Amino acid sequence: MNGAESLMRSFVAAGVDVCFANPGTSEMHLVQAIDAVPEMRGVLALFEGVCTGAADGYGRMTGRPATTALHLGPGLGNGIANLHNARRAATPIINLVGNHALYHLDLDAPLTSDIDTLAKNVSSWIKSDSTAESLAQDGMQALASSLTARSGSAGQISTMIIPVDACWSPAEGAADMPVVPERTKVDEALVRKVAESLDPGSLILLDSDGLSIPARIAANRIAAKTGCRISIGCFPSRVDGGAGLPDCERLPYFPEHVLGFLKGVKTLVLAGAQTPASFFAYPDTPGVLVPEGCEVSRLSGNHENTTYALQAVAEYLGCIDGAYQASEAGTPELRTGKLSTGGISAAVGALLPEGAIVCTDSGGGGAAFGPTRSSPQHTWLNLTGGSIGQAGPVAIGAAIACPDRPVLALIGDGACMYTNQAFWTQAREGLDVTTVVFNNAKYGILETEYLRLGVNEIGERAADLFDLSRPSIDFVKVAESMGVPGRAVSTAEDFSSALAAAFVEPGPHLIEAML
Amino acid sequence: MNGAESLMRSFVAAGVDVCFANPGTSEMHLVQAIDAVPEMRGVLALFEGVCTGAADGYGRMTGRPATTALHLGPGLGNGIANLHNARRAATPIINLVGNHALYHLDLDAPLTSDIDTLAKNVSSWIKSDSTAESLAQDGMQALASSLTARSGSAGQISTMIIPVDACWSPAEGAADMPVVPERTKVDEALVRKVAESLDPGSLILLDSDGLSIPARIAANRIAAKTGCRISIGCFPSRVDGGAGLPDCERLPYFPEHVLGFLKGVKTLVLAGAQTPASFFAYPDTPGVLVPEGCEVSRLSGNHENTTYALQAVAEYLGCIDGAYQASEAGTPELRTGKLSTGGISAAVGALLPEGAIVCTDSGGGGAAFGPTRSSPQHTWLNLTGGSIGQAGPVAIGAAIACPDRPVLALIGDGACMYTNQAFWTQAREGLDVTTVVFNNAKYGILETEYLRLGVNEIGERAADLFDLSRPSIDFVKVAESMGVPGRAVSTAEDFSSALAAAFVEPGPHLIEAML
Repeated sequence: MNGAESLMRSFVAAGVDVCFANPGTSEMHLVQAIDAVPEMRGVLALFEGVCTGAADGYGRMTGRPATTALHLGPGLGNGIANLHNARRAATPIINLVGNHALYHLDLDAPLTSDIDTLAKNVSSWIKSDSTAESLAQDGMQALASSLTARSGSAGQISTMIIPVDACWSPAEGAADMPVVPERTKVDEALVRKVAESLDPGSLILLDSDGLSIPARIAANRIAAKTGCRISIGCFPSRVDGGAGLPDCERLPYFPEHVLGFLKGVKTLVLAGAQTPASFFAYPDTPGVLVPEGCEVSRLSGNHENTTYALQAVAEYLGCIDGAYQASEAGTPELRTGKLSTGGISAAVGALLPEGAIVCTDSGGGGAAFGPTRSSPQHTWLNLTGGSIGQAGPVAIGAAIACPDRPVLALIGDGACMYTNQAFWTQAREGLDVTTVVFNNAKYGILETEYLRLGVNEIGERAADLFDLSRPSIDFVKVAESMGVPGRAVSTAEDFSSALAAAFVEPGPHLIEAML
Repeated sequence: MNGAESLMRSFVAAGVDVCFANPGTSEMHLVQAIDAVPEMRGVLALFEGVCTGAADGYGRMTGRPATTALHLGPGLGNGIANLHNARRAATPIINLVGNHALYHLDLDAPLTSDIDTLAKNVSSWIKSDSTAESLAQDGMQALASSLTARSGSAGQISTMIIPVDACWSPAEGAADMPVVPERTKVDEALVRKVAESLDPGSLILLDSDGLSIPARIAANRIAAKTGCRISIGCFPSRVDGGAGLPDCERLPYFPEHVLGFLKGVKTLVLAGAQTPASFFAYPDTPGVLVPEGCEVSRLSGNHENTTYALQAVAEYLGCIDGAYQASEAGTPELRTGKLSTGGISAAVGALLPEGAIVCTDSGGGGAAFGPTRSSPQHTWLNLTGGSIGQAGPVAIGAAIACPDRPVLALIGDGACMYTNQAFWTQAREGLDVTTVVFNNAKYGILETEYLRLGVNEIGERAADLFDLSRPSIDFVKVAESMGVPGRAVSTAEDFSSALAAAFVEPGPHLIEAML
């Protein structure tokens, strides 16, 4: 057995059995090992950003890492944008990046580059000097690291930059998985202090482990008991929501809206969340979005067991078995007439099937979050790091992870084009993914942001740089070119019927929403 | 005037007047500055790899840098693959990467990341702490650095990571361009030593500045005088070739072919070239591709004035005005019947118009290099760094740089999909680019490389990871979806007529060559 096979055998023994791959010559031994180890499922993509985004979706749905196979520095480079989102989502991922043999690096062959520095941008664990003897063990360390929650935004991405001779040389055999440290529990004194501070002037901000259903149930009970408010952050990696599940608000996006949302809050309690900060800095606008006079206290960091912490607070307050506010079932009224973002949101809310996984990106998809709170139970995977082109790839990973659940990807037209290659893998694997592209023929967010600069009119040359109408992009053809059937709709009625049909029929579909 | 405008005004005054842009919120002041400075041409792309590849093509054709506008770490990440090729081509490029205000970085907003480490992978000059007062001056340093040839493969890419407050705060005004150091000249003793060593057992290997027409003329005269051979490297960034221009051989790709090509060479003289090395390491194959007993000597490095060095050698040998071997005009015979790579090469050689710029990638395009040596004079832009997805973007830059010259992009099917968004910018700008996609429905090179592992049969699961036929990709639809008319052909006759028609009609075209 060579190093590559010892690595793959170790992975599958430890339950890591999917590889989102866009291999090149330096990964041929990894391909050979995938061929030799049938438990490892290779999923081919045409672009590395699809691989990394798919691994993100897979990891968010399973809690286990998928691997990616990427071709040296350029391959990892193409994967960075969606790895950035995955880092922000704290998704476990193991990147397998092929490299030259170490003795070959000095020859400075054309594909040689400093891969470690690239990896550093997104990885909390990097190993680039494995040997055939160490490769299996290194893989298990990569796995353990990817499953270890970290403070701050260090993420959980491991990147193995594998010298090709470590793949082809003989190895002993598979290695075992090391013990993964559990999320730490906060101490009793802190629980007590936070519990005693809560009143109607408090808001508990939930993120990371605080997004779990048990954590949100505990937070809801605490809110019912103390009168405090609860909210999730603006960019939750995963929210399991819908009728019957604990309800809560969500932090808005623009700084002035966040400050409005938090108005009157005297104590902001962070439960797995960071202090709210403006997504971008603006002249004359604060970056830290906490109202004047509001005290910020931390119950738990994003690496800690926030579920435990909130349950301990509820226990202390005597409400661990109390009632909690669940979302009520309801069906938004379907709209008619010219299609709008509101019409799409209403249709998504009304038609979302039980168990659906909704993947969002830039574009109008975020507006459907509210209407889906009354839908049947589902999972919402949000854009976490602001790097657009996420939803198509994440939808792939979610569908591979959960083959029995329908997946809905809501994507802006601009965002869709970064990773349009996702359609091909969706068709190839026959994934039950319905993609809605919000086609307003522009980078709408930039128009908004530009006006926020204080400019009242957008000059012609600037407007041209936000414009996607010259030429217009035909997303039906984009999808069809890669084997995904598509349909363009411009009325709310047609959108609703297209969405209902796509949910019924298995396999991938595109709906191009003409706005 | 704010910092962003001072930067743009400095650039246009120094002759840097194109910006290949895919901006986001942190680049809005750069967009505002482009709007305010009409001499700066903004060219929008849907994906950052198109911007960076276009800047590569532009720089190779003009010798001057274009700028790119990229959105923080993820935007630069998406641009890395084609910047890798540009680094290998030593193309001058100035990346403008927006960043948060420095005071905002500590808040760790979602798009925050360590951009410097990403930039390090491809840049020889990085500045990430500009202020509004320094921005114009920093831009001029970036420009000077991009025009400074460097030894080794350090490249000539400058990356400005620009804090947004440096863009929006007041600045003094434009700055002037500093003096750029010229390529150094080798000394007389070395010229004499090399000149005296040349005989029929020598081979001069040309690259970098040694690819210039005057350098190749001098090398040809030296060969005529001494009986030595001359060759260009396997991955020349730019070769101006065709009938009447100095002819020479080209180093092959696979290690055994290189060693065969160099068989019998006693002295290998590097003129702007590196010692030939295997593109990848293989078990039991040497990495340094120099025959046993062959001495390697260096006339000039890739940062030196190789044109001068070769002319000095010719002068010393008394052949500076001698005859040289020029390529003879000729027209390959057009093929008939089922389309093949050979048929495409013959048609390209026979039909290539005067002044054409040929941009290549992976796929069969490289095979047309030989047949075009007898074509009318043209420019060949090669894949330099092995990072595929280059030709479509490079074609954009070449067409923007040389609006009166037809551009031909030869791209493999796999390669085309990495940066298929190039079609959109070609349509938007009405560029005279003809794209030929070699559609063999597989990653053909990987099949070849896999067999080189010593495996005689490709397992089903491995073969699946090289296969692009499930589903097949309809490149005509891909191009049409973005406004480029396309035609699929499967016979040599149809290919020839499609190519001839595309060369006659202005604007972008796609020919999908079904192999």
